[in-house]
Amino acid sequence: MTRNEPEDTTDLLGPVADGERYALYSPTAMPNAGAFLWNRRMMIQLTCRGYATAQFMQPEPAKYAHAPNLEARTFMQPEQPYYAHHPGRFFYVKDEDTGALWSAPYEPVRATPQRFVFSPGKHDVAWEIELDGIVLALRVQLPEEAPLELWTCTVRNVSGRARRLSLYPYFPVGYMSWMNQSGEYRAELGGIVCRSVTPYQKVADYWRQRDFKDCTFLLAEQQVEAWEARQSAFEGEGGLHAPTALAGERLGDSDARYETPTAVLQQRLVLDAGDETTLRYLFGPAHDEAEIAALRARYLSAEGFAEAAAAHASHLEAGRGCVEIATPDAAFDNLVNHWLPRQVFYHGDVNRLTTDPQTRNFLQDHLGMAYLAPGVARASLLHALSQQEASGAMPDGILLDEQAELKYINQVPHTDHCVWLPIFLDAYLGETGDGALLEEIVEDREGRRLDVAARLDAAMDWLLQARDARGLSYIAQGDWCDPMNMVGYRGTGVSGWLTLATAYALRLWSGLCARHGRADAARRYAQAAEEVNAIANRELWDGDWYARGITDDGVRFGVSADAEGRIYLNPQSWAMLAGTADAERQARLLDAVEAQLHTPYGPVMLAPPYTGMREDVGRLTQKHPGSAENGAVYNHAAAFYLHSLYAVGEGERAWGVLRAMIPGPSRADLLQRGQLPVYLPNYYRGAWREIPRTAGRSSQLFNTGTVAWVYRDVVEQLFGLRGEGEALRVQPQLPVHWPQARVVRRFRGAEFEVSYRRDAGVAAMRVVVDGADCPGASIAGIEAGRRYRVDVVLPQ
Amino acid sequence: MTRNEPEDTTDLLGPVADGERYALYSPTAMPNAGAFLWNRRMMIQLTCRGYATAQFMQPEPAKYAHAPNLEARTFMQPEQPYYAHHPGRFFYVKDEDTGALWSAPYEPVRATPQRFVFSPGKHDVAWEIELDGIVLALRVQLPEEAPLELWTCTVRNVSGRARRLSLYPYFPVGYMSWMNQSGEYRAELGGIVCRSVTPYQKVADYWRQRDFKDCTFLLAEQQVEAWEARQSAFEGEGGLHAPTALAGERLGDSDARYETPTAVLQQRLVLDAGDETTLRYLFGPAHDEAEIAALRARYLSAEGFAEAAAAHASHLEAGRGCVEIATPDAAFDNLVNHWLPRQVFYHGDVNRLTTDPQTRNFLQDHLGMAYLAPGVARASLLHALSQQEASGAMPDGILLDEQAELKYINQVPHTDHCVWLPIFLDAYLGETGDGALLEEIVEDREGRRLDVAARLDAAMDWLLQARDARGLSYIAQGDWCDPMNMVGYRGTGVSGWLTLATAYALRLWSGLCARHGRADAARRYAQAAEEVNAIANRELWDGDWYARGITDDGVRFGVSADAEGRIYLNPQSWAMLAGTADAERQARLLDAVEAQLHTPYGPVMLAPPYTGMREDVGRLTQKHPGSAENGAVYNHAAAFYLHSLYAVGEGERAWGVLRAMIPGPSRADLLQRGQLPVYLPNYYRGAWREIPRTAGRSSQLFNTGTVAWVYRDVVEQLFGLRGEGEALRVQPQLPVHWPQARVVRRFRGAEFEVSYRRDAGVAAMRVVVDGADCPGASIAGIEAGRRYRVDVVLPQ
Repeated sequence: MTRNEPEDTTDLLGPVADGERYALYSPTAMPNAGAFLWNRRMMIQLTCRGYATAQFMQPEPAKYAHAPNLEARTFMQPEQPYYAHHPGRFFYVKDEDTGALWSAPYEPVRATPQRFVFSPGKHDVAWEIELDGIVLALRVQLPEEAPLELWTCTVRNVSGRARRLSLYPYFPVGYMSWMNQSGEYRAELGGIVCRSVTPYQKVADYWRQRDFKDCTFLLAEQQVEAWEARQSAFEGEGGLHAPTALAGERLGDSDARYETPTAVLQQRLVLDAGDETTLRYLFGPAHDEAEIAALRARYLSAEGFAEAAAAHASHLEAGRGCVEIATPDAAFDNLVNHWLPRQVFYHGDVNRLTTDPQTRNFLQDHLGMAYLAPGVARASLLHALSQQEASGAMPDGILLDEQAELKYINQVPHTDHCVWLPIFLDAYLGETGDGALLEEIVEDREGRRLDVAARLDAAMDWLLQARDARGLSYIAQGDWCDPMNMVGYRGTGVSGWLTLATAYALRLWSGLCARHGRADAARRYAQAAEEVNAIANRELWDGDWYARGITDDGVRFGVSADAEGRIYLNPQSWAMLAGTADAERQARLLDAVEAQLHTPYGPVMLAPPYTGMREDVGRLTQKHPGSAENGAVYNHAAAFYLHSLYAVGEGERAWGVLRAMIPGPSRADLLQRGQLPVYLPNYYRGAWREIPRTAGRSSQLFNTGTVAWVYRDVVEQLFGLRGEGEALRVQPQLPVHWPQARVVRRFRGAEFEVSYRRDAGVAAMRVVVDGADCPGASIAGIEAGRRYRVDVVLPQ
Repeated sequence: MTRNEPEDTTDLLGPVADGERYALYSPTAMPNAGAFLWNRRMMIQLTCRGYATAQFMQPEPAKYAHAPNLEARTFMQPEQPYYAHHPGRFFYVKDEDTGALWSAPYEPVRATPQRFVFSPGKHDVAWEIELDGIVLALRVQLPEEAPLELWTCTVRNVSGRARRLSLYPYFPVGYMSWMNQSGEYRAELGGIVCRSVTPYQKVADYWRQRDFKDCTFLLAEQQVEAWEARQSAFEGEGGLHAPTALAGERLGDSDARYETPTAVLQQRLVLDAGDETTLRYLFGPAHDEAEIAALRARYLSAEGFAEAAAAHASHLEAGRGCVEIATPDAAFDNLVNHWLPRQVFYHGDVNRLTTDPQTRNFLQDHLGMAYLAPGVARASLLHALSQQEASGAMPDGILLDEQAELKYINQVPHTDHCVWLPIFLDAYLGETGDGALLEEIVEDREGRRLDVAARLDAAMDWLLQARDARGLSYIAQGDWCDPMNMVGYRGTGVSGWLTLATAYALRLWSGLCARHGRADAARRYAQAAEEVNAIANRELWDGDWYARGITDDGVRFGVSADAEGRIYLNPQSWAMLAGTADAERQARLLDAVEAQLHTPYGPVMLAPPYTGMREDVGRLTQKHPGSAENGAVYNHAAAFYLHSLYAVGEGERAWGVLRAMIPGPSRADLLQRGQLPVYLPNYYRGAWREIPRTAGRSSQLFNTGTVAWVYRDVVEQLFGLRGEGEALRVQPQLPVHWPQARVVRRFRGAEFEVSYRRDAGVAAMRVVVDGADCPGASIAGIEAGRRYRVDVVLPQ
């Protein structure tokens, strides 16, 4: 069960360059590997083979490129299946002299390229494909605000002879609507416009939908020879790998009338040896042709693309991280310096492109923002608290839009949302020192005005009353582990995890109260935390670990007597965080976790996975073994395990967990996970003992509370650069095999150049700030704008 | 605007044989042409190319072969788009010596066959494909009750030499569930079992779903060499037209674990010249493996298939028609003798496979059953009336299952449902003479007990009160023309059609009351009908036709001043039926309909079609021009036009409409409609002047109130063999160009052999029954079990 060692992956994965890009050299080795881009109005996920999933907000998520059938509207699915007619962005290339046909990036023709590079960047996604003496360089970027794709295609003739080509951008639009759909070329716009009407049955829906962007368009900057707007006419009997319409001299100029529309253009290119030409396109949704014309005028030119790129980059720059690191692990550096803060920022910037984020997600996403854009984090906490209920409870989801409604899982009552408030504040206040936040008045929807501290008190009191006679926390139809919907739906079942999490929340809030002049509250909640810990130890300790809960029928589960779901990760992590476990119990539970939950891809959430329905636990047990919750490496849970390991000083064990959360560095590991290390997914498949073939496979889903925690722990624990009151505390837990490391840390407007090195000659850590010893390892009196040099010498 | 004349279609469409089958000779000429089968638990629609859409009831419609993505659950869509990964049933054939690969019936390889026959029968669907010296004969049938497909594949070696083949049935299972899905071969069952869990979020849904048939299986009777249960492993980089797994000697025996499952088997065949072998398969859903084993034991053998076929045929035989005809129009005979009663029976047998049929559909579907299985029709009326509201109103849908709910369009209030009660009774009582029905007591959900006649009175009184001060009927959010949802949603808009339909309903009910000893009621409703007609003439007559309605803002529409939606068909038909129009107005409106609404594919529902939203009419005007309602030949409306033409003695014009409702007989017409004449679709595209390319195209949707009416009019009007009290009235309206025709009519347990002939020597119709003149043309004193010979001589 050891991690694969690094090995040569240069045939697969390219040099990291400046860290801003990755390069994958095969379209088939990791077929579903991809990347995503977003702006404030949209998100697009692209695979290396050219498939794409895009959605934009109006205000609920909507699509402008559709499946070939009527798709369900649902939350983002993990491990999305791709198939021939999945939406994508493709460029067919035909040699007009030989008739040879291929397509870039790879689908739909699947011709084997001489050279293939898929290269996700932070602000764009690019490909370079060489085949048949032609190099096609593709690039997509987004503007700052509009839901719009800006595509560049550069065609280079490297064949050493003159070439006559037809280039056919093929952007399938799919089945737009059963109510109305059509497509045709509009010469005055220089592209294809597909129209539809979002279906509805009830009058009330009409007013919500009348201004929707129901058109999808593909515009070309350069000249268009011919076009197809009807999918069936394009494909003919040839199929997508050899469309009938491409066999002719010219496309058929076929419109679509209540037929599946598509967007295919034909552009003729004559290139001398060595010549290259660049073509540009816009693809996206719009309300009408006037809007399309305006988008063309603004964006469809070299200057428009450049301005859009600058504006977009500048927006993303607002979310840059608070550290830059240089360690012996280049791939890790790359993740932390570029991709991880980018992913953290994505969450806080657009709230996962939902209008009703789950409360726990919303709070943790903005916990991450505390390190990037603390003003956004602050406003989000206040917004969340404005939806606190009179009882002190937090709702299941936070509504971000006036018309938004609680959907899907947010209609199922969960009991853990209050827990996340002090957890957010602990991070936020540590990083910002913004104690005034606690005194901000928040008016809720019933007009009650309470300050933040009072609202936190109410939330903690709510947690304390939502307990049974033993003092264990009710679970209702779920807690953080969503699908455990039948443990307590009859009203008496309790959550072991939530009991421990309540202790942790109380403890954090007590500490914050103590630091911010609320001594009485500090004492009260500290005592409550101790009581809850005692109850947990009495009711939940199973001999070697803590139980997950007790069902409505009084059956303890997540215990050694269980054949499936015997041990859960979360209660163990949180027992360490809450200080529930004494040293002996901590040692026992760590052994149990290592023996039963560790896998080469990280610790799984529970083991052994359930293989069939357990009606007193619920939906979780119907999920596939290896799903996010049922026996997978659920990274959000892994991140809390990481956090708890650092909290108890288990830095070496923590590093193992942290490194396992990142795809690679070995070739085998990359192939098994099937994902590039440009984001952390919400899970890797587990069931490593039961289904080894698929264990480790990435969900390919980048919405996850994981990243805020990993980022926080990298900054505050691994490198030990943690805000504490007005000071920066230095308390690293670097892996012992790192001889040295360097970090630039931005904190309270100052920059700290921190260098770490191991020295066999020292017995204890020594911190030197600007040449002077800093015996408490706490740098106080920080001056904004100043640059500090910090040398940290660590024992070997 | 003349109908295409018959021409030779033998290259396209085969001889009708005994009328039990059709034969289509090309997989590409009419690519979406298909047929459907059903039993009491399921329905399957198959295209000639092998795509399939199947659903079964548990109790709501569910699928066992899915799209490759998460599809929306919705009502049946017209003009369903097909694409490479659409569910289907396919057989790949590989020559083990040459490696040549093709597939039957046509998809996914699309190799051009030497011979191709797609042959839908009444009880099965079959193909015969010859390619590369091999003939593959495929046949699918259903058992009487189970949701299950019984497939036979006969392989014949006609190459004149010994052959070694691999046969690969490929039945894609698709994306079953995001919650859980898997697939593997089970040797003890002899096939592939794919498992899933229907997703849910809320505890309450669990109890509804726990016994679902969440498995999909493909079993082979004969030996299996190898298998694939993972879609991606099957396709590899080859794609569906050349799957990678078929390139090897053996399939890879790959299971699916939370991956899209599939069902592919490999069976090796060694055939000497002239040899043939028959293989059998089962495909369908099941709850668990015990159920699969039981299905295998019962069905998977030659005997099991034969018994199932006999039982299924016997069930369908219960729904045979009440006439057999022989006319100069063989295709018309075929439709009336076989396909039309079959389609009528489908509607009444399974209620369109919904648990909440729209009230108007339910009543009309069972109006059709009056001619096939009157006991079913009777019970259905009583069931519908048991859901009548205290006000006398009928609900928007009739719930057929205790757990059923009103869905989709049934959540939008419509005002026309009461109209269909006397319309049903008029047909039912005429055909059966079952006057006792009117005295049946019906208890509703509130426990009120009223007889049928009293409930009809209440329904008519409800219609009479649901009118404005002028006496016009409110439309609320719709009437029979569903999507006219904004004419009256504010409460004051009225429906011209519904006003006329109210007059017609009152008139029919008055007549029925008169015939069944309720003279007072007869008088009252006759007077009310007259009043409504007078109001309609005053408020709705536009000069040359009747208006469709008046909006909430008092704007009349469907009038000559309108540029779009200027004239609607329904008000004109119903004004003829209700006797609203005097002779002069009738002549004018008939001219207007012929000039503005007739097309080669029948009369369109309105013209010109709307091309953009009209907010005071509503959803209809957002639909595509040519959709069911917005300017299409909506066959249900066409059928009422037909009915009204016969009602006013316009037999010749009626024949033109009737013949236009049937695909063919010309080649061009068949190709344009793209449908075989094995059912009447709910619409043909209209917008014949605006979008000629797609005008006439069939919806390919066989759920339609059309068929009951066409069947009724063929029996009672075209051949004029109408039940009337205890007698059979003979009053034909045969087209003048038919020199003769013959009909066997079953009526009240007797059989009437009717022969018609034109004779220039007679001035008026003469009816001879068993050699004796029948001057009143009404055959009374009918003896059940007796066979009558009826000669009808008609003037030329």
